[in-house]
Amino acid sequence: MTAGAVQPAATARSAAGSDRDARAVLAAATDPGDPAVSGLVARVGAVAALGALSAGGLPAGAVGHAAATRYRRRLALTDPATLADATARAGARVVVPGDEEWPVGLADLDSVRSAQGWGGGPIALWVYGPLSLAAATRRSVAVVGSREATAYGCSVAADLAAGLVDRGWSVASGGAYGIDGAAHRGALAAGGPTLAVLAGGVDVLYPRGHRALLERIAEEGLLVSESPPGTFPTRRAFLIRNRLIAALSAGTVVVEAALRSGALNTATWANGCLRVVMAVPGPVTSPLSAGTHRLVRDAEAVLVSDAADVAATLSGGTSEAVDQQPLPGLTLADAGDPRMGLDEDSAAVLDVLAPLRATGLAAVLAATGLSPAAALAALGRLSAGGVIEPVDGGWRLSAATRTWLRGNTRGPR
Amino acid sequence: MTAGAVQPAATARSAAGSDRDARAVLAAATDPGDPAVSGLVARVGAVAALGALSAGGLPAGAVGHAAATRYRRRLALTDPATLADATARAGARVVVPGDEEWPVGLADLDSVRSAQGWGGGPIALWVYGPLSLAAATRRSVAVVGSREATAYGCSVAADLAAGLVDRGWSVASGGAYGIDGAAHRGALAAGGPTLAVLAGGVDVLYPRGHRALLERIAEEGLLVSESPPGTFPTRRAFLIRNRLIAALSAGTVVVEAALRSGALNTATWANGCLRVVMAVPGPVTSPLSAGTHRLVRDAEAVLVSDAADVAATLSGGTSEAVDQQPLPGLTLADAGDPRMGLDEDSAAVLDVLAPLRATGLAAVLAATGLSPAAALAALGRLSAGGVIEPVDGGWRLSAATRTWLRGNTRGPR
Repeated sequence: MTAGAVQPAATARSAAGSDRDARAVLAAATDPGDPAVSGLVARVGAVAALGALSAGGLPAGAVGHAAATRYRRRLALTDPATLADATARAGARVVVPGDEEWPVGLADLDSVRSAQGWGGGPIALWVYGPLSLAAATRRSVAVVGSREATAYGCSVAADLAAGLVDRGWSVASGGAYGIDGAAHRGALAAGGPTLAVLAGGVDVLYPRGHRALLERIAEEGLLVSESPPGTFPTRRAFLIRNRLIAALSAGTVVVEAALRSGALNTATWANGCLRVVMAVPGPVTSPLSAGTHRLVRDAEAVLVSDAADVAATLSGGTSEAVDQQPLPGLTLADAGDPRMGLDEDSAAVLDVLAPLRATGLAAVLAATGLSPAAALAALGRLSAGGVIEPVDGGWRLSAATRTWLRGNTRGPR
Repeated sequence: MTAGAVQPAATARSAAGSDRDARAVLAAATDPGDPAVSGLVARVGAVAALGALSAGGLPAGAVGHAAATRYRRRLALTDPATLADATARAGARVVVPGDEEWPVGLADLDSVRSAQGWGGGPIALWVYGPLSLAAATRRSVAVVGSREATAYGCSVAADLAAGLVDRGWSVASGGAYGIDGAAHRGALAAGGPTLAVLAGGVDVLYPRGHRALLERIAEEGLLVSESPPGTFPTRRAFLIRNRLIAALSAGTVVVEAALRSGALNTATWANGCLRVVMAVPGPVTSPLSAGTHRLVRDAEAVLVSDAADVAATLSGGTSEAVDQQPLPGLTLADAGDPRMGLDEDSAAVLDVLAPLRATGLAAVLAATGLSPAAALAALGRLSAGGVIEPVDGGWRLSAATRTWLRGNTRGPR
């Protein structure tokens, strides 16, 4: 099988199949981004979680009101066979953790929450299109921004996306009017991969005016959703969807955003899962650049002017660094010493992190002498590569790295 | 005498007078910004330095070639009485250290050098205009930028300057075409003080097209130069003049600058003497915003969109903070505990600095938990207030603060 090709979801039919079916039913019948559900699945498995919720069990820490009753009713109405049928009719596939196509970076969402308490990783994803989701997101940049974008913003977004494709990156966005559409079009025009993460089902081509654009993305790139075919997007779904755009990419670029804009929501998710956030400046006289300027001014984003800036920011100066990350799906035990092949900044950062205790950004800066932007980029790369993990107040070595070091390091235990 | 009025330079005629005359002659006959000359003056005094250089002594560490011979010849041609006459005829006055009108912040230039080795503070200044230089620069912002500015840049510069005047700041710039002129005009239109620091003499109204503008600044604000009346500006003089614009202000705002622009030179001087550097973004498609974007991207400048941003950056969030700085001319011994009246960020930073050893920015960030922008702003305010001083690799308490603490702190010596 060639790189980038789709992995058929059919090994060990019985157990894996029921896990997949249970995840699809759970994803269809519960609120996307309810961490109580994803947490329950993580603790007891999808099949047991489905049983518990179907019996009206209240997931611990459930966010919504009367979630238990709502979930029980919805689960009673959700038939696995009907769901599989709808998925097949839409030409889509269900992708779940453990599949070769599942992007490992989604695990970074596990501990991330919005101010309202929503968050956590998706339970399953519906994917439509000819690429492997893991392959398409191995080197992916999210390019997002306002729906009411200016001609300046749309032009910059299209150029940025095309330049990223030229540099070997795929472009993720949300398929919306304005900056999103310009980014998808720029990527397509450059002949490169682009993925649209939708708030509704992958067969619900919303907004209507982007029907032709989304059909072309479906042919050449990927449509992705955590809701089953036939789902119409809600306002809440757009906001919770933004976390997937952020987590599926190494970094998020906000091209234009007013001070109150959904694009800033994506930036917040990206910061939450320790992705690099970048922002494009514009005239200070344009309200649609006020949001990007605030991100930069508040040190929540690195200023970028073009694709070269984005590539340099994500690779910490050397474009090789990203290629040297362990491939998704390849465990660190397989890859050998996690410190091998790291760029200089990442190696310096890794050196100063404690195995279990959280090391904060300030301590990393003090010990490495790196600039905040360089340190954050290195932390982002190490997190994306699974070498380290974010914890409250900072970062520590990932379980895989600790395991490897235990087995391969001499000295006192 | 009222605040802001001019201080006549006439106390203790004999000694002070000969120091003033010696400084004027030295400033007229040596290269502005030759640290060998200012260093010699600092070590032996202006009168002895004048004697040594007139005898052909080579100042230790002189930058220029054959400086000793050149300086001896020029000094032989410079008559103090003729110089005083030219100053009087130009309606200007010579201001020297020790004068009430001398801005104490200029001392921050003592250890700052350009890549070519130029730098150090001015030996004397020629000043023309109705304001006290110290009073006019007590709350001053430098607004600078490209001569070949766009309509966007000029409009932003004028609005910025007017907004700063409305907030009680004076506006310093270089009197040049483009951004400089727009900044001066914006300040004048708002009825506020503005000072033009010129590369030539205060009676050489350059560039010609700004004759009327510079005449108006001379009537309502100040013209300042470290070269005597009659001096025509050279390219080198423009670059070395930029250090005065930077040091006379609490912060420098670059409004528009191409990647290679003299305005970036002013930003470098401002960073060198630990002033806050700010930059205005613009369209990424405009080459005249490429320089400001690079300053922000490289964390050499804080992004500002308007006068409110500038005021907030300089005051660290509370507009009171700047007013609580010790007044120039008031020593810390007079002011009492240097920690009194500091804003919260400055107090936190002061707490973590060592008395003599350099504490670097990374260590300050680690110990205070402040953002880099907030920490740099606090370090800038503490430096401007004379509470701390920059040293190689970081900051330490100033001699005055150490003296105060020695006299007023209990505990082990």
